[in-house]
Amino acid sequence: MMALMERVFAEPRSLTGDGVRRTLAAIDERVAVEVTEVPSGTPLFDWTTPDEWTLRCARIVGPDGEVIVDAADSPLHVVGYSVPVSQRMSRDDLLSHLFGLPERPEAIPFRTSYWERAWGFCLPQRTIDALGEGEYEVLIDADLEPGSMTYGEIVVPGTGDETVLMSTPVCHPGLANDNLSGIALLAELGAILAAGPPPRRTHRLLFSPGTVGPLAWLARNANGVGVTAGLGVMCVGDAGRFTYRRSRRADTLTDRAAALALRDLGFAHELRDWVPWGGDERQYCSPGFDLPIGAFSRTPPGEYPQNHTSDDDLTLVSADNLQASLDVALAILRVIDGDECLTNTSPMGEPQLGRRGLTRRQGGQKGDSHEAAMLWNLSLGDGQTPLTEIASRSGLPFTVIREAADDLRAAGLLSAA
Amino acid sequence: MMALMERVFAEPRSLTGDGVRRTLAAIDERVAVEVTEVPSGTPLFDWTTPDEWTLRCARIVGPDGEVIVDAADSPLHVVGYSVPVSQRMSRDDLLSHLFGLPERPEAIPFRTSYWERAWGFCLPQRTIDALGEGEYEVLIDADLEPGSMTYGEIVVPGTGDETVLMSTPVCHPGLANDNLSGIALLAELGAILAAGPPPRRTHRLLFSPGTVGPLAWLARNANGVGVTAGLGVMCVGDAGRFTYRRSRRADTLTDRAAALALRDLGFAHELRDWVPWGGDERQYCSPGFDLPIGAFSRTPPGEYPQNHTSDDDLTLVSADNLQASLDVALAILRVIDGDECLTNTSPMGEPQLGRRGLTRRQGGQKGDSHEAAMLWNLSLGDGQTPLTEIASRSGLPFTVIREAADDLRAAGLLSAA
Amino acid sequence: MMALMERVFAEPRSLTGDGVRRTLAAIDERVAVEVTEVPSGTPLFDWTTPDEWTLRCARIVGPDGEVIVDAADSPLHVVGYSVPVSQRMSRDDLLSHLFGLPERPEAIPFRTSYWERAWGFCLPQRTIDALGEGEYEVLIDADLEPGSMTYGEIVVPGTGDETVLMSTPVCHPGLANDNLSGIALLAELGAILAAGPPPRRTHRLLFSPGTVGPLAWLARNANGVGVTAGLGVMCVGDAGRFTYRRSRRADTLTDRAAALALRDLGFAHELRDWVPWGGDERQYCSPGFDLPIGAFSRTPPGEYPQNHTSDDDLTLVSADNLQASLDVALAILRVIDGDECLTNTSPMGEPQLGRRGLTRRQGGQKGDSHEAAMLWNLSLGDGQTPLTEIASRSGLPFTVIREAADDLRAAGLLSAA
Repeated sequence: MMALMERVFAEPRSLTGDGVRRTLAAIDERVAVEVTEVPSGTPLFDWTTPDEWTLRCARIVGPDGEVIVDAADSPLHVVGYSVPVSQRMSRDDLLSHLFGLPERPEAIPFRTSYWERAWGFCLPQRTIDALGEGEYEVLIDADLEPGSMTYGEIVVPGTGDETVLMSTPVCHPGLANDNLSGIALLAELGAILAAGPPPRRTHRLLFSPGTVGPLAWLARNANGVGVTAGLGVMCVGDAGRFTYRRSRRADTLTDRAAALALRDLGFAHELRDWVPWGGDERQYCSPGFDLPIGAFSRTPPGEYPQNHTSDDDLTLVSADNLQASLDVALAILRVIDGDECLTNTSPMGEPQLGRRGLTRRQGGQKGDSHEAAMLWNLSLGDGQTPLTEIASRSGLPFTVIREAADDLRAAGLLSAA
Repeated sequence: MMALMERVFAEPRSLTGDGVRRTLAAIDERVAVEVTEVPSGTPLFDWTTPDEWTLRCARIVGPDGEVIVDAADSPLHVVGYSVPVSQRMSRDDLLSHLFGLPERPEAIPFRTSYWERAWGFCLPQRTIDALGEGEYEVLIDADLEPGSMTYGEIVVPGTGDETVLMSTPVCHPGLANDNLSGIALLAELGAILAAGPPPRRTHRLLFSPGTVGPLAWLARNANGVGVTAGLGVMCVGDAGRFTYRRSRRADTLTDRAAALALRDLGFAHELRDWVPWGGDERQYCSPGFDLPIGAFSRTPPGEYPQNHTSDDDLTLVSADNLQASLDVALAILRVIDGDECLTNTSPMGEPQLGRRGLTRRQGGQKGDSHEAAMLWNLSLGDGQTPLTEIASRSGLPFTVIREAADDLRAAGLLSAA
Repeated sequence: MMALMERVFAEPRSLTGDGVRRTLAAIDERVAVEVTEVPSGTPLFDWTTPDEWTLRCARIVGPDGEVIVDAADSPLHVVGYSVPVSQRMSRDDLLSHLFGLPERPEAIPFRTSYWERAWGFCLPQRTIDALGEGEYEVLIDADLEPGSMTYGEIVVPGTGDETVLMSTPVCHPGLANDNLSGIALLAELGAILAAGPPPRRTHRLLFSPGTVGPLAWLARNANGVGVTAGLGVMCVGDAGRFTYRRSRRADTLTDRAAALALRDLGFAHELRDWVPWGGDERQYCSPGFDLPIGAFSRTPPGEYPQNHTSDDDLTLVSADNLQASLDVALAILRVIDGDECLTNTSPMGEPQLGRRGLTRRQGGQKGDSHEAAMLWNLSLGDGQTPLTEIASRSGLPFTVIREAADDLRAAGLLSAA
C-alpha cells in the first residue's frame, strides 16, 4: 500500500483527467480495474458531469524574473479547475488569486473551483507575504473543455444477487492521508478479495471523484444493484483511533458489522451517529437512495490540522497504520458476509449437545466460549435474529458465534430455512 | 407584568366572585378578554359548578374588645368559601376554626373549603398561640348562594383550524408567585400575540379557577376545538430554574418544543416526566381528553417554603424573572408554530446548493450552522420527520433549522406536500 | 425449612432413584405432593428418560486393607450414575477414576456421568495425593437399569385458567445451598399457598431432576397449561444478595413483578439479562416454549467457590436467609397475582375523590402515597396499562398501587372491563 501511495502521490488528480486515469492504471497492475468514462454534460440527478480539466503548466514569474511558484513542484499549487490565463498584473491584482494559510504559513493549501469558472494559485502564506510591489507574469496553460469523467471499479463477483459497495474518493492531488490512503486500502482489499474464494455477495470497490463520482455510479447502478452493505473509506493511514460513522438508517447490517468488528478486534475506536456531511456516503445515504453505507476512517477528514494542506504528506501515514485499517475493513466484510438468521431445528428444550459430540460441558454450567456460543445460537435461533445481534447480546466475538453456528448447522441443529 | 400584579394582588380571588371578575377586567384594559359566566349547578363531568361566594367582611374580636384578625387586612385571613357566622364563643371552641403554621409562625396560611361547608380564619401561629381565655366575637358576613363561576380567555385567531391552549389558575388571593405570576405572564403574552401577525393556529389563553375552570372550558370546547399543543402555566415569577413537566403522552409537539426552546435559550432548566398532580394540565391530560399539554413553571408549586402562605408576596417575584419566563413561553410557542414535516424534492444525492446561491461550503466539509442546517433538512426531509426532531438530532437551534428550511423551500428544494 | 434440609441432606438424590422419592415424601408430610413416575426410555423431545440408578454401596480399599473412601460417608463420594464395578487395580489405573479439587484440597467435588457409561469416585485431593503404590480393591454395587424417573408437584388450584409455575431441581445429593435450599423454599411456599385462599391462577411447584425433569413436565403439560408467569428457583439459602435473571423475552409479567418486588422490599439485589444457561428456566425459555420464566436466586450457581463441592454444606445456609428468600418469592407471587389492567370509568377530568370520602387531599397538591396512587391509577387507567407498569412509572410500591386500585374499584371509579 505504501508503494502505491509513493508511486502516484504526485499525480495531478482532480474531478477528471489523466491524473485519475494514471492512478487507476497503477492499481490495475495489482488487480483488474474496470474503468468507466462518463461524457461531460451527462446529467447526474441534480448535477451534470463536468468538463474535463487538463493542466499543462502553470507559474508566476515575479518582477525580477524569478519564478514565484511553478505547478511542476506540487499539484497543489494551482486551484483545481482553474481556467487558462496568460497575463501580466500588479501585485495587488494578483493577490486576490493567491491562497495561503495564515495559521500554517509554510503549508500549501488544497483548493478547487469546480463549479465556478475562476483561477488561482495556492502557496505558502510566507511566500505571499514576501511578494514585493511590481508587475507579475501569470501563466496557466490548461484546457477546460468537454471530455469525460473517469471512475474505476474492482468487481469481485459473488455467488448471490446482493452487493457490498466500498467507495473512496480519487480526486485529491498530492495529499496522502486524505485520501491516497483510502485508494491504497481499497486497492489492496480488492486484490485480497479477488484472490480468495467467491464471497456470498458481489463486492464492488469504487474509486471515483468526490460527489459526482458516486452520483455517476448511482445513476448507472442504483436500480439494478441491491446494495446490502458497504463503507465509504477515507483517511485510513494516520495514527488516529478508528472512527465509524453510522449510516443514515443507523441500524443496518453495516452498522452492526462495523460495531462488532471494531469491538472484537479491540482497537481504540469511536462509533458516531450519522451526520449529513463527510465522504461518498453522503450521496449513498441521501433520502432518495438511503443505502446502508457507513463511513470508515481513522481521524475523520477535517479533524486533523494538516488536512487539506501540503502537510498531509507521506510522513503522516505508515504501513502499520494502513495494515491495521485493512485488517479492520476485512473484519467488517467478514461480519457482513457471515451474518444470517438461522433457525433452531430442535427448539423444544435444550438439545443434547453431548451425544452429538459437540460439548464437554456439564448440564447447566457455562462452558468455554464456543460452548456458550452454541447455547446462544440455539436460544436466539428463531429465524429472525441475525448472528450479529446474537454476538452483540452475548458479548461473544462474532467469529465465535459464527463458528458455533457452523458446528450446529453441520450437526443439523440449526438450519437456514 | 409587575404593574398588573401590584394592582390586583389584594383582590379576594376565589373559585368565584368579584375578585376574579376585577382581575379579568384589569387584564382587559391591556388586551381584550372574553369573559364567560358559568351558572352555579352546571354539571362539569364528575363535578358541579359551585355556588358563588361573596365575602363582605370578617373579623374576630377578643375578650377585651381588640380586633384579633380582620379580612380587610389580607384576603388570606378567611378560609375560602367560609359560610356566614356571627357568634360568641370560648377560646377553646374558636381554636378548631383557626389555622396557623407552626413551622412559619409569622405567616398566614392559604386555606379553602370549597366542597365542604365550613368556616375558619387563617392567621399567624404566633397570634393564635397568644390568645387568652375568654369569650370571642366571630363575624363572617358572606353569601354562598347560586350565582356563577367566571373565566376569561384571550383569543388570538389563527389562519388554520388547530388550537394552542395556554392555561393558568386565577383563584388564589393574595399570593404572588402562585399564581398571580402566571396570570401576569399570560396577559402579557396575549397582548404580544394579539399585536403580531396571525399565527398558524388559534391561541387561546385561559384564566380560570383551579380544577373546575379547566373542566368548564373542556365541557364547552373539547369536542369542537382541536388542541394541538399547550401549556399549563404557574409560578413563573420567582428566581428558580425553569421546570417543564411533560404531558401524559410525553412525546407530543409541546414536549418536543419545550425541550428545544429551553435547550436553545440556554437557561438552567429541568425536564420532568408526567405526574398526575399539579395545575390545570391535570384536567387536560386526564385519560378521557389526553391533550398534549405540559406544565411550565420556575420552581413548581409545592416546592418552595413560602408556597401557599402570605410569604409568597410580591418580594418573591421580579420583573426580570417574569420577562425571562415570558421569553421562554414565547420561544416554546415559536417552536410549536414553526414545526412541520417537509419533503426533499431532490432526494437522489445531495442537491447542488452552490448553483442556487445557498452556500459557500466546499464539497464534503461542514460549513457554518446555517449550511449544516440545510444539509440536515435535506437528509431528514422525508416528509415524516418534524423539524423539531431534526433540531434535536442535529443539535442545532430550532430557529437555525427553521430558517434553513425556509431558504430551501424558497429554492424549491423542500416542499410541504 | 432448615428442619427439612437437615432431614434430607444426606439423601443420595440423583436423576432418578429413592433419594428423590424419599425427599418428596418428606415434603409430602408438610403439604401434599403429587408424584409422577416417568418410565425409563420415554422420549423427552431431544432427550430420553434415563435408566434408574440405585447405589447400594461403594468403597475403595487400599493395599493395606484400609478403607480409602466409602459412599456411606457422603453421597458425593461416588460419581453419579456410576456403572457397577468390582475389581482390583493398580494405583495408576485407579487414578483416572478419582476426582479431587486441587484448588480446594479438603473438599469432595460433585460429579456425574449421566449420559456416558463410566464410573468414578470423588474425594479430597489431599487423599488422592497421599495414595501409595500398590493394589486397590474397588467396589461399586449399583443397578443402572430401566425403571422410572420421579418428579413431584405441589398443586394449588386457582380460580382461573392460567398457571404460575415454580420449579427447582431435586437431583443434587449432599449439597445444601445448591439446591436443597430451593427445595426447602418451594416446600414451604407450597404449604403457605395451600393454606391460603385460592389464588387467581393455579400454582404448580415442581420438584424435578435437572434438564430432563422440566422436559418431562413440559412433555406432559406444555400444550394443556397456560403458563403466565413463574420462576426457576436455586441457591436461596446463602447470605448473598438476591439475583433475578430475566426470562428470554425480558418483558414478561414475571420480569416486571420480580423487579418491583425486589425494589419494594428494599433488599440488595441485581437484575440481569437472560443468558442461555443456568437452571430449569433453560428448558422453559427454549425458543420452542419461550415461557415467561425467570431465574431467582441469591448468589447464582457457579458464582461461589463452594459450589458443587462438599463445602456447600448446611453451614452455608441459614434460617434467616431462607426466610428472606421466601418473603421475596411470596412478594413476587403477590405482584403476579395482583397485576391487571383497569379502566378509569370517569376519565373526563379528575374525578371528585373528596365527595366519595377517598381523600383529604387539597386540589392540585400531592397527598400521601395512597392518594398519589389513586391519582396514578386514574391517570394511567386506560385499560391497557398493567398495575405493574403504574407502580414502575410512579415509583410507588406495588402494594400501594394495588390497594388504591381496590379502593377506586369499590368506589366505581375503576373497572376491569
